[in-house]
Amino acid sequence: MKITDYPAPETWASLSERPQIDRKTLEKAVDCIFDEVRKDGDKAVLRYAQLFDNARYADLVVDRACIEGATAQIDDSLKKAIAFAYENIMSFHASQLSDLRRLKENKIQTVKGVTCWRETRPIEKVGIYIPGGSAPLFSTVLMLGIPAMLAGCKKIVLCTPADKDGIINPAILYTAGLVGIDTIIRAGGIQAIAAMTFGTESIPRVNKIFGPGNQYVTAAKQKAQLLGTAIDLPAGPSEVLIIADRTADPAFVAADLLSQAEHGPDSQVLLLSDDRSLIENALCETQRQLALLPRKDTAAKALANSKALLMQNIDECFAFSNVYAPEHLIIATDRATQQAAKVTSAGSVFLGAYSCESAGDYASGTNHTLPTGGYAGSCGGVSVESFIKYISFQYITEEGLNNMAGSITAMAAAEGLQAHANAVNVRKQK
Amino acid sequence: MKITDYPAPETWASLSERPQIDRKTLEKAVDCIFDEVRKDGDKAVLRYAQLFDNARYADLVVDRACIEGATAQIDDSLKKAIAFAYENIMSFHASQLSDLRRLKENKIQTVKGVTCWRETRPIEKVGIYIPGGSAPLFSTVLMLGIPAMLAGCKKIVLCTPADKDGIINPAILYTAGLVGIDTIIRAGGIQAIAAMTFGTESIPRVNKIFGPGNQYVTAAKQKAQLLGTAIDLPAGPSEVLIIADRTADPAFVAADLLSQAEHGPDSQVLLLSDDRSLIENALCETQRQLALLPRKDTAAKALANSKALLMQNIDECFAFSNVYAPEHLIIATDRATQQAAKVTSAGSVFLGAYSCESAGDYASGTNHTLPTGGYAGSCGGVSVESFIKYISFQYITEEGLNNMAGSITAMAAAEGLQAHANAVNVRKQK
Repeated sequence: MKITDYPAPETWASLSERPQIDRKTLEKAVDCIFDEVRKDGDKAVLRYAQLFDNARYADLVVDRACIEGATAQIDDSLKKAIAFAYENIMSFHASQLSDLRRLKENKIQTVKGVTCWRETRPIEKVGIYIPGGSAPLFSTVLMLGIPAMLAGCKKIVLCTPADKDGIINPAILYTAGLVGIDTIIRAGGIQAIAAMTFGTESIPRVNKIFGPGNQYVTAAKQKAQLLGTAIDLPAGPSEVLIIADRTADPAFVAADLLSQAEHGPDSQVLLLSDDRSLIENALCETQRQLALLPRKDTAAKALANSKALLMQNIDECFAFSNVYAPEHLIIATDRATQQAAKVTSAGSVFLGAYSCESAGDYASGTNHTLPTGGYAGSCGGVSVESFIKYISFQYITEEGLNNMAGSITAMAAAEGLQAHANAVNVRKQK
Repeated sequence: MKITDYPAPETWASLSERPQIDRKTLEKAVDCIFDEVRKDGDKAVLRYAQLFDNARYADLVVDRACIEGATAQIDDSLKKAIAFAYENIMSFHASQLSDLRRLKENKIQTVKGVTCWRETRPIEKVGIYIPGGSAPLFSTVLMLGIPAMLAGCKKIVLCTPADKDGIINPAILYTAGLVGIDTIIRAGGIQAIAAMTFGTESIPRVNKIFGPGNQYVTAAKQKAQLLGTAIDLPAGPSEVLIIADRTADPAFVAADLLSQAEHGPDSQVLLLSDDRSLIENALCETQRQLALLPRKDTAAKALANSKALLMQNIDECFAFSNVYAPEHLIIATDRATQQAAKVTSAGSVFLGAYSCESAGDYASGTNHTLPTGGYAGSCGGVSVESFIKYISFQYITEEGLNNMAGSITAMAAAEGLQAHANAVNVRKQK
């Protein structure tokens, strides 16, 4: 991990750049698989499962007994751990719902006889993609399933890759069952996203697709978006930026850097401080802890691309962080809660020595599906709002329309839209 | 306008399909212009203005005097009309802001020692695209500029095409000045969107691009989205669906159909009723009113592609409408306010005989930038929320982390992420 001393502000934008992926080769694969899934439905999904994963199963839909059977395969201690996280995620997201419920009561009379308000409705059908691969991300089932249930989505489809015999990690099945998701599909990769975009015989078409994935899955979600299916976020490599002052504990900082670095070789890890000895001690401690990790090879690769920046002062650390717009921001200073106001762009912020990122990844209650790659500059993470849509309503009385008639007809005339004015005039003439 | 009697529910999905545009040819033009603007900045923007619009100007930035000069060119009656709309749009959107301000106070203690909450921050830099062409859409300047100002966006850039001498419609300049937008750029089409995506010498790079446009502008916004710049909505042809019962006034219904049809030859217009004579009378009245319109050729083309559907009853009208997910929904029945609850997918809903769409287009206070093409199934229209992002925060005490430690470490171990567990363990060991 390279230390850069006092980078000049004009270099911050380039220091904030994330590695680019070559989209062209991805797009070809995506276009091809989308075309086949649109044409051949289930058959195409199974064909690609055979091609990529040597799949020997023929059933895409996981049956009820299989979901229930997973319960017996999970240790009681893990069940307890999941139940604890479930409660916290539920209570934090339920508080978002109560904010939304107030909207309907917030009716505004903009003019006498003109009442305007908004109401929310659940997105009817949503898809949740859970990657397989090295880490069975059952925690993401909680993070996406709970707000979907709270929002009231009518259909929740979960797609996740199975092994060649059609077996899905039982923790994923168990968690899906706990949340109440009953449509679970053995499908991964581009073909799973294509299936939820078009719908197949077994896989429902959805209005919005959520969930993380590798660069193929992300490219497929972006294709889905072009075809009219909404997506949560274009997920990129995970990121943490830590702002630490001289009061921070180097061992805590090191552990947090490593918990991000182990995600993948392309994970983005940044340490910013106004204190060179804190940086040096934290990096030294990072090497010590790294040696003991099962995923040390992955973490070492991520660290090789990571940056430690010595800044003039803590304010400059925040200024850089706001340019970078990290997915996770840890403020490891003795004035963290007061400094929260300095954050203008970040996905999720962890304040103080005991707020480690892994708490938010699993159990504190906040969502872990967050904007990466600088998207925190324009959007937030997944919340109950991600599963609903706003509809505006207006009720106008005869008096209300009369009060507005002059303004509407003058503006319509100035925009050259006479039929817009006529819609008012025919009503006035009655 | 063709009347279809009692379409079977299995035909509703195909009746709801919008015309497809050929994306491939658009994408080539978009890729080429984006590459040049990235490379050559202002020069490329001017080059395309010369090529497409015979532009003879060299200044992309509209100067202060020019914006102020527009005031003198606007009639007092139009100024008054705009001021009236401004007040209503401001008061409706300000009420959205007050909902958001409560978030920070909604701190949840999910576990003793674990406090989670959300705060909002404005999106720092936003771009507003206002098309030129046949209708100078100054009303859209209000609809996008007012919520951007309310949200507190630091930089608001407005791009709009100028004529060959660099002149922009004074109503657009006047309205921008009224809202407080001081960065106005003479640029239209794909090159304007590319410039706001990459930034040029004169045109700031923005985090999110808003505003309507033709299919080239929409394709350019989708390209911007792939490159990491957020967009409001992929704008398609405008749409209205009217549900009318036998109590509806055929002249009102006709006027509303026409106010949508005059937007463009590809406008989507649907009339649904359980009463055949209402449909027949409304269509007859549509022909009568059409003949008197300045944009009758455009409206006639749109009507030729439009549909009138006779349904079994009003509930079936709502069921179809929810499948179609119209941008605008007019409920012209005698029980409109009670029936609002039946709407599950629509952009903006107009209740009762006097709630004409043009009221919402200009002056009632609701936003007119709305989801088209079926996107109302997954997202709402532009609101103050479109100009902000949510950030989640958590503050965890030593006790709080101890309370969660078992759950976090068990889940991390089950996901195979040991460094995530270590971040808790190093803290417990202190």
